Amino acid sequence: MAGNTFGKMFRVTTWGESHGKALGAVIDGCPPGLSLSEEDIQKDLDRRRPGRSPASTKRKESDRVQILSGVFEGKTTGTPISLIIYNEDARSGDYSTLADTYRPGHADRTYEQKYGLRDWRGGGRSSARETVARVAAGAVARKFLSTFGINVVAYTLELAGVKCNRIDETVIDNNPFYCPDEEAAQLMAVKIDEIRRRGDSCGGIVQVVARGCPPGLGEPVFDKLDARIAYALMSIGAVKGVEIGSGFRCARMLGSEHNDPITPEGYASNNAGGILGGISSGMDIVARVAVKPIPSIRIAQQTITRDGRPTTITVKGRHDVSAIPRIVPVCEAMMLLVLADFMLHPTMVAKYGFRHT
Amino acid sequence: MAGNTFGKMFRVTTWGESHGKALGAVIDGCPPGLSLSEEDIQKDLDRRRPGRSPASTKRKESDRVQILSGVFEGKTTGTPISLIIYNEDARSGDYSTLADTYRPGHADRTYEQKYGLRDWRGGGRSSARETVARVAAGAVARKFLSTFGINVVAYTLELAGVKCNRIDETVIDNNPFYCPDEEAAQLMAVKIDEIRRRGDSCGGIVQVVARGCPPGLGEPVFDKLDARIAYALMSIGAVKGVEIGSGFRCARMLGSEHNDPITPEGYASNNAGGILGGISSGMDIVARVAVKPIPSIRIAQQTITRDGRPTTITVKGRHDVSAIPRIVPVCEAMMLLVLADFMLHPTMVAKYGFRHT
Amino acid sequence: MAGNTFGKMFRVTTWGESHGKALGAVIDGCPPGLSLSEEDIQKDLDRRRPGRSPASTKRKESDRVQILSGVFEGKTTGTPISLIIYNEDARSGDYSTLADTYRPGHADRTYEQKYGLRDWRGGGRSSARETVARVAAGAVARKFLSTFGINVVAYTLELAGVKCNRIDETVIDNNPFYCPDEEAAQLMAVKIDEIRRRGDSCGGIVQVVARGCPPGLGEPVFDKLDARIAYALMSIGAVKGVEIGSGFRCARMLGSEHNDPITPEGYASNNAGGILGGISSGMDIVARVAVKPIPSIRIAQQTITRDGRPTTITVKGRHDVSAIPRIVPVCEAMMLLVLADFMLHPTMVAKYGFRHT
Amino acid sequence: MAGNTFGKMFRVTTWGESHGKALGAVIDGCPPGLSLSEEDIQKDLDRRRPGRSPASTKRKESDRVQILSGVFEGKTTGTPISLIIYNEDARSGDYSTLADTYRPGHADRTYEQKYGLRDWRGGGRSSARETVARVAAGAVARKFLSTFGINVVAYTLELAGVKCNRIDETVIDNNPFYCPDEEAAQLMAVKIDEIRRRGDSCGGIVQVVARGCPPGLGEPVFDKLDARIAYALMSIGAVKGVEIGSGFRCARMLGSEHNDPITPEGYASNNAGGILGGISSGMDIVARVAVKPIPSIRIAQQTITRDGRPTTITVKGRHDVSAIPRIVPVCEAMMLLVLADFMLHPTMVAKYGFRHT
Repeated sequence: MAGNTFGKMFRVTTWGESHGKALGAVIDGCPPGLSLSEEDIQKDLDRRRPGRSPASTKRKESDRVQILSGVFEGKTTGTPISLIIYNEDARSGDYSTLADTYRPGHADRTYEQKYGLRDWRGGGRSSARETVARVAAGAVARKFLSTFGINVVAYTLELAGVKCNRIDETVIDNNPFYCPDEEAAQLMAVKIDEIRRRGDSCGGIVQVVARGCPPGLGEPVFDKLDARIAYALMSIGAVKGVEIGSGFRCARMLGSEHNDPITPEGYASNNAGGILGGISSGMDIVARVAVKPIPSIRIAQQTITRDGRPTTITVKGRHDVSAIPRIVPVCEAMMLLVLADFMLHPTMVAKYGFRHT
Repeated sequence: MAGNTFGKMFRVTTWGESHGKALGAVIDGCPPGLSLSEEDIQKDLDRRRPGRSPASTKRKESDRVQILSGVFEGKTTGTPISLIIYNEDARSGDYSTLADTYRPGHADRTYEQKYGLRDWRGGGRSSARETVARVAAGAVARKFLSTFGINVVAYTLELAGVKCNRIDETVIDNNPFYCPDEEAAQLMAVKIDEIRRRGDSCGGIVQVVARGCPPGLGEPVFDKLDARIAYALMSIGAVKGVEIGSGFRCARMLGSEHNDPITPEGYASNNAGGILGGISSGMDIVARVAVKPIPSIRIAQQTITRDGRPTTITVKGRHDVSAIPRIVPVCEAMMLLVLADFMLHPTMVAKYGFRHT
Repeated sequence: MAGNTFGKMFRVTTWGESHGKALGAVIDGCPPGLSLSEEDIQKDLDRRRPGRSPASTKRKESDRVQILSGVFEGKTTGTPISLIIYNEDARSGDYSTLADTYRPGHADRTYEQKYGLRDWRGGGRSSARETVARVAAGAVARKFLSTFGINVVAYTLELAGVKCNRIDETVIDNNPFYCPDEEAAQLMAVKIDEIRRRGDSCGGIVQVVARGCPPGLGEPVFDKLDARIAYALMSIGAVKGVEIGSGFRCARMLGSEHNDPITPEGYASNNAGGILGGISSGMDIVARVAVKPIPSIRIAQQTITRDGRPTTITVKGRHDVSAIPRIVPVCEAMMLLVLADFMLHPTMVAKYGFRHT
Repeated sequence: MAGNTFGKMFRVTTWGESHGKALGAVIDGCPPGLSLSEEDIQKDLDRRRPGRSPASTKRKESDRVQILSGVFEGKTTGTPISLIIYNEDARSGDYSTLADTYRPGHADRTYEQKYGLRDWRGGGRSSARETVARVAAGAVARKFLSTFGINVVAYTLELAGVKCNRIDETVIDNNPFYCPDEEAAQLMAVKIDEIRRRGDSCGGIVQVVARGCPPGLGEPVFDKLDARIAYALMSIGAVKGVEIGSGFRCARMLGSEHNDPITPEGYASNNAGGILGGISSGMDIVARVAVKPIPSIRIAQQTITRDGRPTTITVKGRHDVSAIPRIVPVCEAMMLLVLADFMLHPTMVAKYGFRHT
């Protein structure tokens, strides 16, 4: 059972390769009667577009989305919503030398081992370009969730070793790193520039926060809200870790510190990250992901050819220095997909219905 | 779509409450012809049994598993395997005072908000007792995987602030914490005892390692091997974080450090944790989870009653000081379920078949 | 992906063999707050019990169901409902001669070809005894649906060549064939007796009617209501055909005859069988199934042994002459499972909620 | 959980409306390494194209398929295959008068009741045009199955009351009705012409035969091969009945007649239709469907408007007189999808692998 569908109620199936004709998503299960336009989706796509930040590639993609089905007279009809984004600037030639050599840190070799062959043009399906379809689908989820007053925001907590000292969400869109600390953002720019010049790459940490979620999201025992969030976020190519609320810090805490006291006004703290027993508590849902450095670097690396001979590789072409900031809207998208999915589970629909109709 | 089934090919559905008549699991999709006995399963169950470690409750449960279907003349038949573990020492009386008060850090309130009612006897379905069914199912997965030479081991890397300085898997079963460092284990015992006397609880970190996995496990793009592992491990009650390979450390690494060089003899390092592009590489698969402190503590905590009045609570009864070590076999079980599931996906079956038949 | 689960929202997983320790079902997705007792389920089980009709076996099974989880203080909790029925009168000895010979019309040979081995005791999992778990699960669905005023009734339309000339549902329980025509029932009794004496068996037709269904059930395009009904009913062992409304008669009708005229008071006829475009219209949902003769007959039949030698077989033991009437409650159960499933799909929950809470 | 995906291993998600921009299918789970071209798919699409038969509409659609992803250098890569067919001749104007009136026998009213709104242009998603995506996906399944020597053929057994007296598959493509009896085909032409002139429509019966299937296809107990075939075929818009092998005739047969004797050379008859206990036996798989008359007729019919007032309707525009013959390749497609799905289940892959790689 192949793995290109995410969600049980708000089901998203994505398709497409880095250098194929197009990429797309089919959303099955979006409720009828929701206002939806291409502009609603384009907004989110523009936030992950290449060339927007100094950390990202110069590949030119306008990434224009088209809605091919499921919307009639400006409203969703309850039938599948097909979204398509045509590839424009896909120069396969750039990659042809990679047909016979495996790039370290990439999926080249594992894809070939699994499938017996691979589309080597820019990584094919394993390229981060795949996430354009996630963001498009996530934008539809965002529109649906907005009718309940739910929204999701993600931002860069750490990049190239530079940490934020404050979180001011109002400044996120003012800097190229989606960083909530302007001062840190300036240091990041310096650091990124330095790493780029060395031909290297770097990682970081992204925080994702969902606000306005009612209690009740999540389906014990396996489909706990935190389990599905971990699943969703870890499915993003560069992510090596996911934590909720207190996260790895919890390992050194005592129960008396970690338990969030309950008061008539609500929980007095949020170590739980908004989730208790796998079910949302009504507090902000807070997750963080660790983002590994982009594996494509100009520095020479040790590798082998398809026929097993040792060689070195220097990855040329247009590559991001970090998956951050372009991964930020992708993290939002995956959280949005999880939440939209759970808002359509029976216990939630019984309580909240479809607000928009 | 409720959440009590895990897996797509090796599908496990669990059921049962802490103080109900029994708990169990139904496994649908286990290949036919596999030798399987109740003893195969009992071995793993005995490792998570209460009373085994100073960190765990004195609740007496022999936790004897019975196979009710799916095995004929000592072999699986390809039909559903139903496993049952009857509850023995379920004193609901112990919990009756909790019917009207929410325990901080527990799912009491969120279950009630979601379902409109809750089985308050020992947490009902939200109790860690639920994991007995996971371990039973995991043992079947272990038997299946053993035919391919795959095995999974988990151990305590950190408990109550005490870290391991060495990893010697041969000593894991020699101490009550499944700790691979005997010296650390002794410090842990002291620390646990101290915390217990204060009526508090503590967290820790568990590492899970899978060995012998062939390349090719995992289904891009959403069902990446790491995504499913994160999903599986985060679905365990007390887990607040999951990381793979380098994990959160990757955030501060450079691409030139993080990429595992490829040589004709294999990968020269394993920052990837055995997974590239969501597909196993043939290296050890390495995951770590952050385990929060047990929320049931004797120390008085601030909370509210069902009708919203502020109160304090002191959780009595038999409670573990830490989910570690009993969570260790549960982590193994969840990893085993993920791997068994992927070994039954078409690309793997086409290559490896069913070894045991 | 093995096939022992039915339903997407109201998910039923069944397990158990004819001569194993027990059979059972796990229901995941039943809404919380529904009143449910073992008696609610026992009622339906008693209707399929052997020995009730002259057409059925004398095997003695009290078929007592136990609820092992998911119900607390008389109400469902939203967690999985585990149902178990222990086998009592399972004399494997009766069947041991069949270990080496394939019974014509049975699954003996195909199971062995598929799985490489088979539980030959009474057909193992392929036995009609498997349906006891369907009926138990169906009874829970019936309880849930009753809160919406939906009910399902099935009856024998034809048996051993004897057709009903009238449909009077009030007499169904007055005769051993669940026949809505008392006169026909008397002829059926004569015919069945005659066939039994010859050591032969016979087939028939069952009609299933669902009343009180609101418009909107069914999920185009593949999960049309009629498609899921056909799936559900054809999954019952002895069924060789399923038709909806006009059924096969439609092949010779004209559009002007077949279309049900729409009036302000409703549809003027019901050739559609209550379903248009795969969605319930609010009219009665009407399905019929063709039931093949029980393959176990005393008359000698040509077959082969496991090692391929020709032989003849005379099936001894306690066998029904017809799957009717015991299949009648099974047909009801499958229809109930389909309807409960669709009442939990988002568009329906948004409109109708959970009536019982 | 919406219903636009079919299959568990070979998963097909379709999308698109009659008068939208395009229709398409995404296939997830097609094995890698299979040769596949647009021509492979176009062949099957051409067989369901409008205008090919006197029974079908004059709507001009070239129905050119494009493969947008999942194929690289002529081979499938194991990633999702996205197929698109752009709509060309979609004159919404033709239908605008239908926005306010429900057509009898159509899904107009039930869609509106379910979704609260509907795309009235040519039936939107409920149009038979939807099946173009099924046929495209089915063609990929056919290519995959051909590597095992499996093929599927369907033909018209009865149309407008005219029955075939012989089955000669070599003549199917020589007449416009996919009829295996040339003489019957001539009578059908006369009958169809007469019905068309009256502005009426008619139904018929289609037989679907799968050859070359190995034993073992199907997953008891709910996913029996016959259950999935019934599900697949009944999901086609105009189908009101599905039968397997002996079908409804079985109701009047005795066990001694119905059981197919087993001989060392194989089964001596095929009342089972190639399926025993839900598992393929190696014999031809034989199914039949009842096809209702096209509901769009020129004859005036009684109906109501959206606001409930009684009116009459005369459906104008380009309409088929019968869903036959265009439904014939659709029936083939659905059978192909079921078989491809089951050939990818573990027990089959373990035995047969991927033949093409």
